[in-house]
Amino acid sequence: MNTHFDEELNGLNSDILKMGAFAQEAIHKSVEALKNRDRSLANSVIANDALIDELELAIDEKCLDLIARHQPVALDLRFITTGMKLNAELERIADIALDISQRVLELADKPLLKPLVDIPILTALSKDMVKMAIDAFVNKDINLAKKVLFSDSEADRLRNAIQKELEEYMIKDSTTIPRAIQLLLIARFLERICDHTTNIAEDVIYMVQAEVVRHHPEKLGK
Amino acid sequence: MNTHFDEELNGLNSDILKMGAFAQEAIHKSVEALKNRDRSLANSVIANDALIDELELAIDEKCLDLIARHQPVALDLRFITTGMKLNAELERIADIALDISQRVLELADKPLLKPLVDIPILTALSKDMVKMAIDAFVNKDINLAKKVLFSDSEADRLRNAIQKELEEYMIKDSTTIPRAIQLLLIARFLERICDHTTNIAEDVIYMVQAEVVRHHPEKLGK
Repeated sequence: MNTHFDEELNGLNSDILKMGAFAQEAIHKSVEALKNRDRSLANSVIANDALIDELELAIDEKCLDLIARHQPVALDLRFITTGMKLNAELERIADIALDISQRVLELADKPLLKPLVDIPILTALSKDMVKMAIDAFVNKDINLAKKVLFSDSEADRLRNAIQKELEEYMIKDSTTIPRAIQLLLIARFLERICDHTTNIAEDVIYMVQAEVVRHHPEKLGK
Repeated sequence: MNTHFDEELNGLNSDILKMGAFAQEAIHKSVEALKNRDRSLANSVIANDALIDELELAIDEKCLDLIARHQPVALDLRFITTGMKLNAELERIADIALDISQRVLELADKPLLKPLVDIPILTALSKDMVKMAIDAFVNKDINLAKKVLFSDSEADRLRNAIQKELEEYMIKDSTTIPRAIQLLLIARFLERICDHTTNIAEDVIYMVQAEVVRHHPEKLGK
């Protein structure tokens, strides 16, 4: 038993959970800013991004240091390199929340186009998917990772429905076009967050299965 | 001198160059398909994506194997983990070419909205940026990586110009809206490719500078 190393791996888990919490908060706040046309909330998401970037670098550094000092192999090595990828995905998710906030600033002076019905639903789904993807990594839970992958078609469906509805608005009333384009972009940003979570889920499945394939092929189903 | 290890690191460079060539080809073909409303070319980009995914996994596996067998530290370790990130970025770039090809399939039956003037320019820029980013990694060339970062504002400018022009089309003639939205998405996809290259460039700068900071702080400028 290498207790010290195990403790450091647990520390990596905590860091990833923290990074995930930041990303979820950024998504949440950016869409709250949209709902309430709240410039200062949107600006706070944009300002906070530098902290998330710093945390990403710190986690990356810690992972490299773990590899260099402990020279792990097999699942431990995969866990750390997958953690590095996941860290990068979470930073990108936070970047997308920043993109959304910038769209909110464009929209803040204008009347809301519609009650945004499906955008909050897609937002809730994207936050759930972020949470599931991180939990799948932390618990090496392949079934939860698969649940993330299954959820992606619902995200696509919602985005397409939003896009279609906005297209109809634009065709009916050309004065809505500039605002509708911003909302269309926000819907696509949210769906891209879901895409990032499927990247994470695939990495988790690959991390767990590659070890199963290498060392316990008998455990793999069809 | 660890010649065998050096050879394997060179092998990683070749793999990344190959992955980069695939990604550049996918971008090129997807926009050629757009220009010529060529369904079969668009479909070939979509079909080819599975090969690129396989290459990504193979490179990832090779990187893990390199770390596990040679237990590198310092710049060698950073080079390999940065290679893993770059590999993932290139796979995402190829995915975006697939996204573009899917938009092309939507547009293939309809008359072209306009001569697409700025989309080919943004395409050329995105291909250049992919090439520069890969070369910056392979040659550990921090100046070339910075050139990629500087190019990003031009990509943003082009995307905004395309978006503005398409918005004007839509406002003038509502029958153009569905096609204009597809083109607007394609412009954003191309700009996202440029964003991925800036991720690569940042990773390269970080890879080189972190070593400089750690071991030769006197070499760092302001």
